Amino acid sequence: MPARMELYQRSGNDPEAEIAMFVLHLGSATFLLTEPVISAMTTGAATHVVTSQVKYLLGMKMPYISGPLGFFYIYAYVFENIKSVQLEALLLSLLSIVVLVLVKELNEQFKRKIKVVLPVDLVLIIAASFACYCANMEYTYGLDVVGHIPDGIPSPRAPPMNILSEVVTEAFGVALVGYVASLALAQGSAKKFKYSVDDNQEFLAHGLSNVIPSFFFCIPSAAAMGRTAGLYSTGSKTQVACLISCILVLIVIYAIGPLLYWLPMCVLASIIVVGLKGMLIQFRDLKKYWNVDKIDWSIWVSTYIFTICFAANVGLLFGVVCTIAVVIVRFQRAKTLSLKNMKELENKVKTEVEGENLQLVKIISINNPLVFLNAKKFHADLMNAIQKDNANNQTPDDINKCEQNVLLNSTSNGTCNGETSQPYPNEKCSVILDCTGLTFFDYTGVSTLVQAYMDCKGQNVDFLLANCTASLKKAVQYCGHLESDKHIFFESVSAAVGAIHLNKNLSKFSDHSEV
Amino acid sequence: MPARMELYQRSGNDPEAEIAMFVLHLGSATFLLTEPVISAMTTGAATHVVTSQVKYLLGMKMPYISGPLGFFYIYAYVFENIKSVQLEALLLSLLSIVVLVLVKELNEQFKRKIKVVLPVDLVLIIAASFACYCANMEYTYGLDVVGHIPDGIPSPRAPPMNILSEVVTEAFGVALVGYVASLALAQGSAKKFKYSVDDNQEFLAHGLSNVIPSFFFCIPSAAAMGRTAGLYSTGSKTQVACLISCILVLIVIYAIGPLLYWLPMCVLASIIVVGLKGMLIQFRDLKKYWNVDKIDWSIWVSTYIFTICFAANVGLLFGVVCTIAVVIVRFQRAKTLSLKNMKELENKVKTEVEGENLQLVKIISINNPLVFLNAKKFHADLMNAIQKDNANNQTPDDINKCEQNVLLNSTSNGTCNGETSQPYPNEKCSVILDCTGLTFFDYTGVSTLVQAYMDCKGQNVDFLLANCTASLKKAVQYCGHLESDKHIFFESVSAAVGAIHLNKNLSKFSDHSEV
Repeated sequence: MPARMELYQRSGNDPEAEIAMFVLHLGSATFLLTEPVISAMTTGAATHVVTSQVKYLLGMKMPYISGPLGFFYIYAYVFENIKSVQLEALLLSLLSIVVLVLVKELNEQFKRKIKVVLPVDLVLIIAASFACYCANMEYTYGLDVVGHIPDGIPSPRAPPMNILSEVVTEAFGVALVGYVASLALAQGSAKKFKYSVDDNQEFLAHGLSNVIPSFFFCIPSAAAMGRTAGLYSTGSKTQVACLISCILVLIVIYAIGPLLYWLPMCVLASIIVVGLKGMLIQFRDLKKYWNVDKIDWSIWVSTYIFTICFAANVGLLFGVVCTIAVVIVRFQRAKTLSLKNMKELENKVKTEVEGENLQLVKIISINNPLVFLNAKKFHADLMNAIQKDNANNQTPDDINKCEQNVLLNSTSNGTCNGETSQPYPNEKCSVILDCTGLTFFDYTGVSTLVQAYMDCKGQNVDFLLANCTASLKKAVQYCGHLESDKHIFFESVSAAVGAIHLNKNLSKFSDHSEV
Repeated sequence: MPARMELYQRSGNDPEAEIAMFVLHLGSATFLLTEPVISAMTTGAATHVVTSQVKYLLGMKMPYISGPLGFFYIYAYVFENIKSVQLEALLLSLLSIVVLVLVKELNEQFKRKIKVVLPVDLVLIIAASFACYCANMEYTYGLDVVGHIPDGIPSPRAPPMNILSEVVTEAFGVALVGYVASLALAQGSAKKFKYSVDDNQEFLAHGLSNVIPSFFFCIPSAAAMGRTAGLYSTGSKTQVACLISCILVLIVIYAIGPLLYWLPMCVLASIIVVGLKGMLIQFRDLKKYWNVDKIDWSIWVSTYIFTICFAANVGLLFGVVCTIAVVIVRFQRAKTLSLKNMKELENKVKTEVEGENLQLVKIISINNPLVFLNAKKFHADLMNAIQKDNANNQTPDDINKCEQNVLLNSTSNGTCNGETSQPYPNEKCSVILDCTGLTFFDYTGVSTLVQAYMDCKGQNVDFLLANCTASLKKAVQYCGHLESDKHIFFESVSAAVGAIHLNKNLSKFSDHSEV
């Protein structure tokens, strides 16, 4: 079986990949793995496992099919060779599945009342093996059985390093998928029992715990959802439960393994498929995502499709890239300014200056970081907000049409509708930009801010910045060559309003003195 | 010359790549290309061009070197074979460069006074060719000359489609780099002359304008910084200038081309190198980036290094990925809440309830979109803010240490310092979360919000949401199964404060009636 062999060989390099990722602190990068992506990926992986068991469930002989779209080739092969289905195997599979599902459902129902849970998988294995042995089904019906299992553990051997270069990319994929599945389970447990998980430490533990198995040609280990759920449901709390479980597995490997010779493969496949119920049931999450966020729903569906068509690591990569792209696009389109309290504050200033020389003060809050993603939209939104009340006689459509000309050609003669840029000749508009919400910025953001300042200056609009951080202040001063112009930064919005008043009175005073 | 041939072949597939990108609306994705990345990439590309001219400047014979790190191999080769430098060529190069730089500098200085600009490149070409012809330098000193140039345009031939699969990835790279260089120039012009550029339309135009040249084995065309600057400085305003310039080029190709036989290669190389001055001078931007945003400075430097070591497309890709990664990390670390006006509003409510039964109302604004990137930090920040005043007797360090236990184990017995979670038994704290700045959310964000609500409920803290959008309301209700609980959403902060008062009075009333 080339597939299994490949996995065996890979295992040697999986822990190294994980430890390398720990050193790179990639464990902290797992915040990129959102719940929808992990859910879709694990559901897709479970679908792949079910698909790999189909041939045993149906008792068919089938060549090993893998690669991209292998999922569909397997089902195409099954439907083409539907006549070669072994009825005995199919019936036994159906019977096993029905028994397993029924008993597990009953167990779940009566768990509270009768404290003991029937280990139905174990009972089924023993019963099926015994029946198969007694009826000699292997020869009578030609049923596939598990066959000879070598007892004990193989002697340790160093993992083959010469194939490292061939498997290194695959090893990273296997490591990532295994780690993600484990982490998802760990976070679920953490939520349930109220403790916290250190992503990067978990990564190291996961990598180190795979070092020893790599000397015994094991498949890379990862947390198993069914096992964990089983342990919790039987009431285990500490790692002593794991120790007991390990000892039992060792006993099976050394003593009971050979007795499983007679276990029919279709029964084993049924147990595997029913065991994946918990993962496949995640399809129900789709309804939740649909109601909460349709985009997350689409990410789930597309990640699942990619996992089905290609592999779990391809699906995971697609999901992560998709999630990042969606956030970037949403961020780019999100509104940048909040104008809520503007009206109130405008009125306040109007009454205080006694209506003699009407002065508009607009207080605009910026609610987002100002970076290359939203800088362009910020500029357009800000100019729109400044223009809005200056051009009450215009419809919004007109403003949009004229915006480019009016706002940018402030020095040119060709204004739109003539009076737009200066509707009230003796009214000077002031804008206070509250930067409390501007949590970080980059060069593009700062140069857009400076651009907006210049545009306002060109339109004879006062532009004041309140609540700037020291670094923002420095950046704006440097970028706009404003080292000398110190009257645009204020500690708070009220300080800026006060400064406008003072200026107003001064200019009134100078007006009077001129008269 | 394999390199030139390769470029010629490539040209056939470049326009298709550009048109494909137009169809995919990738032109709108150019917002990802920030000024530092474009500046670093074009500077790197200019450095590559200068490097390719070094052998002509020094008059050396050199094999064609390309591939990763080819840049360094070229200089290594030059230093190893420093003795084979042709002194005549070197002197002629130095002389040409000095003349070009001096005259261009003088042109720049006196441009305003004398309206005519000396076309020094043209003069130099004619003078050098004539001198070379008269002195028969090709044979006397063994100087490399341009040699035979075929006159006219080759007959049109369909681009070879059979090599498409080999060059398709490279073609996308070439298309992107050419487009980016052109777009950067277009945006510069747009800024200068105050018009706006449609990224995607530009992409289509760029692709279509490369379709016809692909039948004549041309190198993919892109906007030239030097040419554009030249046109602007001579005062051209419309596309008639381009038409005249094209006619002149056609005349050169058909009539004057053969006369360039005698132009020494080292003079041509000098002209190319001096022509790149405008691009190389972008090194000066480094100071600006350093002062405005140190991270953008690092992106510039690393993009430049990648462009130098590999190629312009690799550098560009690195720069874009780097820019996105930086934004994600910054976003993840940015502060999520703003508590500025909290104190004031707290006091207000305290006085109104007459101090009898002290009630803390905290009004917290959320200033960012709530997505998977910052959801975890939002939860921690919010819990910190709620806990802060409830635990005045603790130092912040203690809070951080205890946070996990106290906040998450609200139902468990093991609290930190005993009295922390309920410092004043008869005081009920209320939190109003102002969601005005919450511009968008995803599933992770909503489930964190619901988690915060549940945690507050567990701690007997009222949790009210103000200014929610309809979609956020629906998502929170669905995600937290709060369909029945309608008293957590309010239209505004003041409505929420009013509701708290009302509840307060009602509970006081019921307290009295019970007594």
